[in-house]
Amino acid sequence: MTVEVYRGIDELRSALASVRSAGRPIGLVPTMGALHRGHGSLISRSAAELRPENGLTVVSVFVNPIQFEDRTDLERYPRTLDADRRLCEEAGADIIFAPTAREIYPDGFSSFVDMEGEFTQKLCGRARPGHFRGVLTVVCKLFHIVGPTRAYFGEKDAQQLFLLKKMAYDLDMDIRIVGCPTVRETDGLALSSRNARLAPQERAAAGCLIRALKEGQSASEDRLPGTAGTARAERAASVRASLIAAVEGEPSARLDYAELLDAETFGPVTDETGRVLLAVAAFFGETRLIDNVIADVGSGGKRDESR
Amino acid sequence: MTVEVYRGIDELRSALASVRSAGRPIGLVPTMGALHRGHGSLISRSAAELRPENGLTVVSVFVNPIQFEDRTDLERYPRTLDADRRLCEEAGADIIFAPTAREIYPDGFSSFVDMEGEFTQKLCGRARPGHFRGVLTVVCKLFHIVGPTRAYFGEKDAQQLFLLKKMAYDLDMDIRIVGCPTVRETDGLALSSRNARLAPQERAAAGCLIRALKEGQSASEDRLPGTAGTARAERAASVRASLIAAVEGEPSARLDYAELLDAETFGPVTDETGRVLLAVAAFFGETRLIDNVIADVGSGGKRDESR
Repeated sequence: MTVEVYRGIDELRSALASVRSAGRPIGLVPTMGALHRGHGSLISRSAAELRPENGLTVVSVFVNPIQFEDRTDLERYPRTLDADRRLCEEAGADIIFAPTAREIYPDGFSSFVDMEGEFTQKLCGRARPGHFRGVLTVVCKLFHIVGPTRAYFGEKDAQQLFLLKKMAYDLDMDIRIVGCPTVRETDGLALSSRNARLAPQERAAAGCLIRALKEGQSASEDRLPGTAGTARAERAASVRASLIAAVEGEPSARLDYAELLDAETFGPVTDETGRVLLAVAAFFGETRLIDNVIADVGSGGKRDESR
Repeated sequence: MTVEVYRGIDELRSALASVRSAGRPIGLVPTMGALHRGHGSLISRSAAELRPENGLTVVSVFVNPIQFEDRTDLERYPRTLDADRRLCEEAGADIIFAPTAREIYPDGFSSFVDMEGEFTQKLCGRARPGHFRGVLTVVCKLFHIVGPTRAYFGEKDAQQLFLLKKMAYDLDMDIRIVGCPTVRETDGLALSSRNARLAPQERAAAGCLIRALKEGQSASEDRLPGTAGTARAERAASVRASLIAAVEGEPSARLDYAELLDAETFGPVTDETGRVLLAVAAFFGETRLIDNVIADVGSGGKRDESR
């Protein structure tokens, strides 16, 4: 199957007009390119879900300048369109939308989607001011350009997924936001386009993130004698301390944050919390990596496998 | 023709689903109710433009709390749904969407469309902080709920029309924003739902706005001997001074602002300016009224009739 690449908004819209007027659904996988098997899993899922309805999968490949607060990070972000195209074909995509920055942000551009609320100021929202405004704005634009029925995002970017679902709900976007499980290397490292930048020693060290998270997940879910009655907030604080210690114990890692939050509200863990998000970010050399897992603390320690 | 009234988003979407899947266009006239002949002209225009394509006109009636910075103004805003319904029927609307505030802003709502740029800080943007964020956000939501092909707004709210066009362009909304001429009383007063609040003496005084604007329009367009070479910015400053004097000469009026701007950019008037927006806002008692006209200064003083 050949994937068509479109550079312009009007051109893409024309290509999609007949699909839409025929009532066929459209799946959108927004990416910044440098695609890996994690993206591949989103594309395959879209292709599989939409095929029975004769739908079509669009992958957008756009390194979105307004979500980078760090110009060097933006410039160093890998760009690999030829390889991306092959991966899209193999995973079952129909169309790649790969616009220029000028096509998306013409001169004088000044409209943004912004979100208030404490949950925007935590985790990556605190570490990267303005980042989520950039993400919400470009995804809103992509939604308007492509008009998808469903849009697929990875659970690795847990806060992004939370905020995108909230944007879609708050602004009445008639689009189903689908979160997909994080794809990992054999040592558990979450796939990320940024992994390619890691020096061998940094790559080896990066495994500490998922090891720390898995330990924290078990500790959160365990009903140890004497801890059964411990308030969840208190246990979360203790798990957080171990998470921090585990990442800081790795000499090549520099911790950015380690947090436990209520996975449903992105507020603090309380006795009402059923699912806890354990989230961590750390630098390995110049490269910042993030990862997260969910611990089920609300139903006898059994993990919720439906996520 | 009977107009259907919908209160819920899901209910409205179901009603519109068949229209959309049949590829029939939808016209949207967003209002805050208390409809007058100005709104009627927007509805009639939508009905006339969409009828040949078997389209359908939706009028939204929603007093949007987040665009009111003044709680008293919000509470005093007239609500007249029965009369609105009759006007909608007569003007050719098909559907009224009249949601509750809770339906549009459920608990925890926190996503907004916001615009940067000097043009957001002028005129009503300066006089009413947060007002346009509220307008852009609710219109974005209505666009997502209704999915219109075209949306109709009055030219009386010139800055609102400018910002909505800019939002639609910046965020790639595939919707044509149609500006419609201001409808006026016999003495020239622009129709406004707020006119109903004017005491008789205030109503008589309110005519000063359009008189001042018309004089300013003539003065801007006149090529008087000796003024032909005058820089446009300088002439604009002098016209602005006369506008201010004219409104302040009316004892029952309290001036809020009087400005001349480049109508295309909403920036200052320069020698490149072809069309000048003359805009004025004033209080009559507790009631704030706005109005504007366009002066053509770029083509030998001939008014641009296409506006």
